[in-house]
Amino acid sequence: MEAIKTYIETHSGRFIDELFELLRVPSISSRPEHAGEMYRCAETWKKLLLEAGADRAEVLPTGGHPVVFAEKIIDPSLPTVLVYGHMDVMPVDPLDEWTTDPFQPVIKEGKIRARGADDDKGQAFMHLKAFEYLVSRDLLPCNVKFLVEGEEEIGSPNLPAFCREHAGMLAADVILVSDTSMIAADTPSITTGLRGLAYWQVEVTGPAIDLHSGLFGGAVANPINELCRLIASLQDEKGRVTVPGFYDDVQEVSPEERERAAGAPFDEETYKKNIGVRALKGEEGYSTIERVGIRPTLDVCGIQGGYTGEGAKTVLPSKARAKLSCRLVPRQQHEKIARLVQEHLQAIAPGHVTVTVEYLHGGPSYACPIDLPAYRAAEQACLDVYGKLPVPTRSGGSIPVIAAFEEILGIKTILLGFGLATDAIHSPNENFPLQQLFNGITTITRFYHHFAGNHNNK
Amino acid sequence: MEAIKTYIETHSGRFIDELFELLRVPSISSRPEHAGEMYRCAETWKKLLLEAGADRAEVLPTGGHPVVFAEKIIDPSLPTVLVYGHMDVMPVDPLDEWTTDPFQPVIKEGKIRARGADDDKGQAFMHLKAFEYLVSRDLLPCNVKFLVEGEEEIGSPNLPAFCREHAGMLAADVILVSDTSMIAADTPSITTGLRGLAYWQVEVTGPAIDLHSGLFGGAVANPINELCRLIASLQDEKGRVTVPGFYDDVQEVSPEERERAAGAPFDEETYKKNIGVRALKGEEGYSTIERVGIRPTLDVCGIQGGYTGEGAKTVLPSKARAKLSCRLVPRQQHEKIARLVQEHLQAIAPGHVTVTVEYLHGGPSYACPIDLPAYRAAEQACLDVYGKLPVPTRSGGSIPVIAAFEEILGIKTILLGFGLATDAIHSPNENFPLQQLFNGITTITRFYHHFAGNHNNK
Repeated sequence: MEAIKTYIETHSGRFIDELFELLRVPSISSRPEHAGEMYRCAETWKKLLLEAGADRAEVLPTGGHPVVFAEKIIDPSLPTVLVYGHMDVMPVDPLDEWTTDPFQPVIKEGKIRARGADDDKGQAFMHLKAFEYLVSRDLLPCNVKFLVEGEEEIGSPNLPAFCREHAGMLAADVILVSDTSMIAADTPSITTGLRGLAYWQVEVTGPAIDLHSGLFGGAVANPINELCRLIASLQDEKGRVTVPGFYDDVQEVSPEERERAAGAPFDEETYKKNIGVRALKGEEGYSTIERVGIRPTLDVCGIQGGYTGEGAKTVLPSKARAKLSCRLVPRQQHEKIARLVQEHLQAIAPGHVTVTVEYLHGGPSYACPIDLPAYRAAEQACLDVYGKLPVPTRSGGSIPVIAAFEEILGIKTILLGFGLATDAIHSPNENFPLQQLFNGITTITRFYHHFAGNHNNK
Repeated sequence: MEAIKTYIETHSGRFIDELFELLRVPSISSRPEHAGEMYRCAETWKKLLLEAGADRAEVLPTGGHPVVFAEKIIDPSLPTVLVYGHMDVMPVDPLDEWTTDPFQPVIKEGKIRARGADDDKGQAFMHLKAFEYLVSRDLLPCNVKFLVEGEEEIGSPNLPAFCREHAGMLAADVILVSDTSMIAADTPSITTGLRGLAYWQVEVTGPAIDLHSGLFGGAVANPINELCRLIASLQDEKGRVTVPGFYDDVQEVSPEERERAAGAPFDEETYKKNIGVRALKGEEGYSTIERVGIRPTLDVCGIQGGYTGEGAKTVLPSKARAKLSCRLVPRQQHEKIARLVQEHLQAIAPGHVTVTVEYLHGGPSYACPIDLPAYRAAEQACLDVYGKLPVPTRSGGSIPVIAAFEEILGIKTILLGFGLATDAIHSPNENFPLQQLFNGITTITRFYHHFAGNHNNK
């Protein structure tokens, strides 16, 4: 392990230059006008993969943004690891809350600050450098493939089709992904579950034009008031979703597992302090960890209607819109939930306004058994670097494509993430500590070591 | 009456040039960056008033945007009419819904199209031209004063103080205002009541930063969901406002008066067609005319929170904001309602978020007795031009300063408006028919004729 640490120290300057090159590309996948940036980002990945030692690296088209595929096959009889990551990032607004330019990365207080520093450019980059080290020292114990996509933040709409078309090219024994977080910088954890996602846009239309709120107020339904009523009605006072059938397929977790999970280190005060809330709030009868891990949710991600500028405008607007999302747990099917929510909203929509519900995207949840050889290898790698075994945790986040990998390619995924709760992913001032970056690279090199070992002895 | 009609025909080209000069100034009072435009607009008014025959015209400072005062005193022993209008206009967003540039006036299908074409540049301009005609023909039967302000659309925050300071200068027997609508182009009406207004900005703050809706969703209260719950709770299923004490001071209207008002011509199908709604909706137990005339309301004029751009962003936002307004009826005090709503929102605010309620502005309601000599004169003027007596109506709109005039100057106001429901005031594509403009000028000249007569015989 000294060797990899020395290698990182020796090359850290170059590592940071290369990562910054990726971070400077505003690869926001949800913005059509950024399509060109996705290609720029893909070409940069291709270049870095070839420089790191890949036999081949290609930018391949999909129905949307391109993907990058690379591989190094040292011996077809050896096991193969497929590394998955994504080059796209979330939008950056509200821009005025950033203390540094989201696409001009800088290092401050030992942290890389930029959109994508953690999610997922920084974390995917760790795999690139672990691979580079193993190849450069002729220590690579198995075959490695890389799949870096450009649509993860919009739900990977085109990756399932790509996987079906290229199942042979993507064949592997396990998929290794760093796109999740660990409990704390000194407390490694491996994500054994991911929530599914369903995301809608709801629009309420009242009058055909914006109206004077005095001349017409009281006689015409106000689309904002109506939208608020619809949204408010979707959850009860216990914090449960009121959509009929919403909980039908929810996998109930055994008292034993709930007890075990309750043992994981969690400091509520630190948690509240990190996100700056006075009090936590969620579904009655569940702990905070359970509310984000084993329970589904309903959150409005955005809402807009009427006059939102400075000062006052007395208007009764024509339209109001909201972006609605649900996080789903194992056994809940996102397509079914999409339909249930759409049907429910239409069923409760008042006749004096028009309510349209557009399903933007979704994905299933995922669960990883902790007795997989690859999971054991990840455990051992964490033990080597952190001196303790990682805690298996269920993440509240969603990586829809992980479930698709299992369904389409029949390959399980190990979610070995190095993010921290303070990295502000999806938020202004996203950051990633250099220590996490370097420990991540080291841990990944150890994963290959143990994985090849476990695999041969299995 | 032939004389004035001929005069209008002869000079209509110049009238339109002059009005367009006013309409080209983007005098949006709610935007600090437009302060310079307010002065430009005031100087244009001053010039036009002097050209029309005023003895003096001045641009006078207030605590905010300036006002224009002008007068022609033909004989101090004669009665005096104070004409009030406003030079400021509403914001123009959503700009992309305008079919023509809001500040490049054009005439299409016999209508002047521009922001302010009706409210209130077009209507105030009618008084300028009626005055010009009477002066040019030496027919002015009384003294006339003009007060044109620049803050009506933001609630005239500085005009009451201005009135107190200049009570002598503004002394008059009656105030004449055209800033309201008539029932139809062939059905004159005079507004005998105006609703009061109260306007707040409500902000709900949850976490200190935007959070990932997956990692934190379910564990932390979502400010948008909370804001929607607050707003939804402010009205019950009967369409009544739930704020304790909200209806305590509402002036109940006698069954007789409700019956008389029910006689006013009103075609619900045309009304619905004009505003493009499938069905009307309002407080149970009241007609549409009553809902906008004699009943108070609660409308959200704007709402914003989280991600509102294209596509999807899975965020649990830090803040959500709404602009809330109430229309008030006689006897409801806006200061009291402001306090009741603020106290109620704070009382029902959940402890896990922070709710701030800022009172932006408000104003009292107004009622005009129909036996005033000046009201009779307006009735006669309408009869002369339209061949029928005007219908006394209560407008749902608010002109806070009208009640202030009565309170501070002790002068009643006649609301002789020529707007139509289709003028789209406060909305994209505001317009004002030339026929309304010309009939308005004619009617106003007849008002002076009858007013001087009635006044001398009173």
